[in-house]
Amino acid sequence: MAESWSFLDTLDSNFRPLVVIELAKGTKEETIKWFTKRIVDKKANGGEYSMIFCAQLLVKPLVTEKGEENIYLVGASHLRLLLGAETVGLVKECNDNSMRTFTYSSRKTFRDFADDNHNFLTMAECQYIIKHELENLRAKDEKMIPGYPQAKLYPGKSIVRRLLTSGILVQIFPLHDREELKKLRHSWYGRVKVGYQPLDEIRCYFGETIALYFGFLEYFTFALIPMAVIGIPYYVFAWEDYDKYVMFATFNLLWSTVILEVWKRICAIMTYRWGTLLMKRQFEEPRPGFHGVLGINPITGREEPVYSSIKRQIRIYLVSLPFVCLCLYFSLYVMMIYFDLEQWALDYHEENESNLSSLMLFVPSIIYAVVIEIMNRIYRFAAEFLTSWENHRLESSYQNHLILKVLVFNFLNCFASLFYIAFVLFDMKLLRQSLATLLITSQILNQFAESLLPYWLQKRHKKKMKKRMSSLKTDTDLTLVEQINLEKEMGTYFGTFDDYLELFLQFGYVSLFSCVYPLAAVFAVLNNITEIYSDALKMCRVYKRPFAEPTANIGVWQLAFETMSVISVVTNCILIGMSPQVNALFPDSKMDLILTVALVEHLLLAIKFIMAFVIPDKPRDIQIKLARLEFESLEALKQQ
Amino acid sequence: MAESWSFLDTLDSNFRPLVVIELAKGTKEETIKWFTKRIVDKKANGGEYSMIFCAQLLVKPLVTEKGEENIYLVGASHLRLLLGAETVGLVKECNDNSMRTFTYSSRKTFRDFADDNHNFLTMAECQYIIKHELENLRAKDEKMIPGYPQAKLYPGKSIVRRLLTSGILVQIFPLHDREELKKLRHSWYGRVKVGYQPLDEIRCYFGETIALYFGFLEYFTFALIPMAVIGIPYYVFAWEDYDKYVMFATFNLLWSTVILEVWKRICAIMTYRWGTLLMKRQFEEPRPGFHGVLGINPITGREEPVYSSIKRQIRIYLVSLPFVCLCLYFSLYVMMIYFDLEQWALDYHEENESNLSSLMLFVPSIIYAVVIEIMNRIYRFAAEFLTSWENHRLESSYQNHLILKVLVFNFLNCFASLFYIAFVLFDMKLLRQSLATLLITSQILNQFAESLLPYWLQKRHKKKMKKRMSSLKTDTDLTLVEQINLEKEMGTYFGTFDDYLELFLQFGYVSLFSCVYPLAAVFAVLNNITEIYSDALKMCRVYKRPFAEPTANIGVWQLAFETMSVISVVTNCILIGMSPQVNALFPDSKMDLILTVALVEHLLLAIKFIMAFVIPDKPRDIQIKLARLEFESLEALKQQ
Repeated sequence: MAESWSFLDTLDSNFRPLVVIELAKGTKEETIKWFTKRIVDKKANGGEYSMIFCAQLLVKPLVTEKGEENIYLVGASHLRLLLGAETVGLVKECNDNSMRTFTYSSRKTFRDFADDNHNFLTMAECQYIIKHELENLRAKDEKMIPGYPQAKLYPGKSIVRRLLTSGILVQIFPLHDREELKKLRHSWYGRVKVGYQPLDEIRCYFGETIALYFGFLEYFTFALIPMAVIGIPYYVFAWEDYDKYVMFATFNLLWSTVILEVWKRICAIMTYRWGTLLMKRQFEEPRPGFHGVLGINPITGREEPVYSSIKRQIRIYLVSLPFVCLCLYFSLYVMMIYFDLEQWALDYHEENESNLSSLMLFVPSIIYAVVIEIMNRIYRFAAEFLTSWENHRLESSYQNHLILKVLVFNFLNCFASLFYIAFVLFDMKLLRQSLATLLITSQILNQFAESLLPYWLQKRHKKKMKKRMSSLKTDTDLTLVEQINLEKEMGTYFGTFDDYLELFLQFGYVSLFSCVYPLAAVFAVLNNITEIYSDALKMCRVYKRPFAEPTANIGVWQLAFETMSVISVVTNCILIGMSPQVNALFPDSKMDLILTVALVEHLLLAIKFIMAFVIPDKPRDIQIKLARLEFESLEALKQQ
Repeated sequence: MAESWSFLDTLDSNFRPLVVIELAKGTKEETIKWFTKRIVDKKANGGEYSMIFCAQLLVKPLVTEKGEENIYLVGASHLRLLLGAETVGLVKECNDNSMRTFTYSSRKTFRDFADDNHNFLTMAECQYIIKHELENLRAKDEKMIPGYPQAKLYPGKSIVRRLLTSGILVQIFPLHDREELKKLRHSWYGRVKVGYQPLDEIRCYFGETIALYFGFLEYFTFALIPMAVIGIPYYVFAWEDYDKYVMFATFNLLWSTVILEVWKRICAIMTYRWGTLLMKRQFEEPRPGFHGVLGINPITGREEPVYSSIKRQIRIYLVSLPFVCLCLYFSLYVMMIYFDLEQWALDYHEENESNLSSLMLFVPSIIYAVVIEIMNRIYRFAAEFLTSWENHRLESSYQNHLILKVLVFNFLNCFASLFYIAFVLFDMKLLRQSLATLLITSQILNQFAESLLPYWLQKRHKKKMKKRMSSLKTDTDLTLVEQINLEKEMGTYFGTFDDYLELFLQFGYVSLFSCVYPLAAVFAVLNNITEIYSDALKMCRVYKRPFAEPTANIGVWQLAFETMSVISVVTNCILIGMSPQVNALFPDSKMDLILTVALVEHLLLAIKFIMAFVIPDKPRDIQIKLARLEFESLEALKQQ
């Protein structure tokens, strides 16, 4: 690869803007000059470090209507992108249908490769490569960012991350491709048709993480359909028989295990096709917020901030953990107050029956809903602060700790009242009613707050912008300027966290109390069908285009869903045990009933674990393909 | 590496015998000639296949007293062994204390390497290399073994495996090193001292699999000591208080989780030091017994027998699984007959009290013990037959299926009667008594049958041999001839399966009913201390030296022990719930009692899973070392 870098002297004449860099207004001239020079400068050959001091990309300033120069377009020559694809370790399909890590020297063996085919790499891949190169642009011997003495640098520090944390760099985002987006929108949600989503096209445009979310959403919806179909007659014929409920719950429990196991297989098929299943994990750099005293990283041997793992453990176990427990306790406390209020309102209504008092009946619920929402927001803020304060070195570790904190709290907030109604009040009617209310209102509110409202705001803003723009009309390049000005004001999509959380809570509503309210699956299916459309709308219309993130699975969410399905075995067994029909079967002895329920529960749990163990995580043909690759690399090693 | 093979022309003059090959008496001359030629022939350079048609080792016939030539000694030059170490992917320590895969070209960077240091590779490693080379000796274009038309060959078939299955090759085994063995025996069990076993020396002599077994045995014994120490006062002071039992059981349950998690860490530390943690899994060849029609292996693309996976699944699920279930049912049926007999004997004794009738009381137990032993043997035979008939392609998959079958049956056979006494008869006194009897008798019998008896037989045989030998005294090389003649008659050690099984059942006796019989841990500790000595004796004196097997963990046994510790949570919670002391706490309502027990059980299970999740499987410094190696290989890839 070393000699290929010199090819890059001959730059492509047609510059295609891929990524937008927005600097703060009034950024000093010398800083801009230094920064753009580092982006454009040629990479030197040889030496461990020389590769990472310059990026050898293309930069063009964008002259806005006011003549300000704070927006820069970044692109790269076709050859540069191919070399970058090798650096990030992209996996592409070969002519012999196998998936292999792309290298520049073996480029001819890859399907659809031609020196003049600029579509070999998708635009999302090109943008990912540029992002990777920019983020890996490192300080050489600068002690600070030129012009900003307070923005310290040390050898090897990522320049872009320092520019971001010191506020000089406002944002970096990839540009939309209007033509492609139009095509994608059309095939995704533009036409009225029943069918699968164009996951491969979504992956080409938005990257693997987002495509995998939509893949999971679609799969999950299909997986819920059998539950919904079986659930409908329970509602229609008002079945209340013991054996039918037991059958439904048993089916539900086994089904939820099967769908989670099968998802792993489908996920493996998709990510194999996309190449991310084989992609080697890159060495993770410290996340932007990480700080510490300068020391030697024991892994890389380079100088960088280090932070003692023991200090972090102390912060996690002595501060964060107690805080989370306290919050959980507080949340339970608030719930108890709500039930007291409810009781009080009921008593009041019974004593002084009037229009006012019947209105009063709704007050506790409304207050509780508002308080829960407020608590959720405050807690989310606190969780982000705490996790950031725990000072995790890696973004992945930060994310896992944040997800865990938020997940536990949200679980309790959403389901504690249902658990209380079910297992303390023993009021199945109220449980069914609360479940339905919570499920349906949360679905409607979510879709509204998440997609429709932002879409409407976005549309209004766009109109205003268009008016302002059309009054100018000076430049031939107006469409691009207009596009960038529009896109840079759009909201930022913060990742799939909230989308998965919504699905997770929905899975809880469907599975935890499934034997009490079989209709939940029906609502979930209906919601998910519209969810696909509103999420697609959100991705295409409301938010800035996000950078593609290669990923091979849905990560910690798989574990979260599996845990939920284990908990639901326990809750469903107890619910069935409490039903009057089952109680009638054991008229003489409550003890026999409880023992039977406990036995069935343990059996179901054992079956679940055995099923999870027996069903292979990857389909056989993917296993064979992976084994073949491993065999080939072993053989190659022997020949060396 | 390619050019290094030519170095080997200059053979070392001092031939050191490492491995013994015993051919059947009367093997045809042409077969012997062909086989030894293939072993000795030089490897050609280049080409994928040329490397595996000849082994380039040294062979010497051993002339026995009767002048027969059916035993051959195999050795190799020092250089050949180093190249072989690279082929099998040995990991050794470097001068900078890191562990790296050995390559001949980087040999100078390894600790203790010198061209004339023949101890750089341990004898066990040399023997492993020779075994690997012999087993990988493949047929070129022979259609059969010369002289034996019925022993078919096809290109790529392992010659040694065909020779073994067609009975021409009787056995291959590595030679003992009398000097080393003496030293090892001395430091292992020769002197009376309290201390750790010399695990590193055991590993050097017997390889990682066996060293890991002894490491686990030692670790497990130490881990049982706290349980034993806490258990003693319960016996001495005859404590029967509720809270003390609960405390002991809770401690036991959490402790068993902790020790299994900590073992993973200790195992990682040991295998990192030994290099096997980093060793890449070699591509596994089909096991000797595997058969099928000739086809193309989809992984290697080579011609070899293939067997449809669906056929195997059908055999597993439609034949083996029902058969195992039938055996389990039969075993339960036999147990019920035993309890009936017991009852009948008791009734008879009460009616006609006499000496004869009191003797009759023991008859059912004796019959049952004998029947269990017979059933175990027949079942083991059937399990081996069935697993072999399932026609697994890989030895590892064969072993896993065999272990699973034997484990389930042994678990039921050993513990079913205890479960019956505890949870059907509710007889805690009888449970304690049966537990003690079963535990202690099985321990004594095991140690006797496993080590002491074979040792005594072995010693007698040796004396006879020595007498016969001393009457000959013709050759100067007598000691070697004598040694080989002795060793080839020794029993073969069939792997660690039975040793682990013994520990597994012991773990069951200790943990399943720990709150009923706290003294079990004391007996287990005492047994394990003598077990270490008797197993060491067995390895050093009774059996042929086994080939070293590199391994990074105890494999499926970790899972087996973890499953046992989950089951023991359930049994202990039920036992505590049944104890009269706990029952006295809930005088009014049995229901509250059961609910409380169920709640505690679920909490304990949850804590177990969280602990298993939170405790990292590898210590931090091992994690860092592994991450550093990964980082280095990523960097190296970038520089390429």
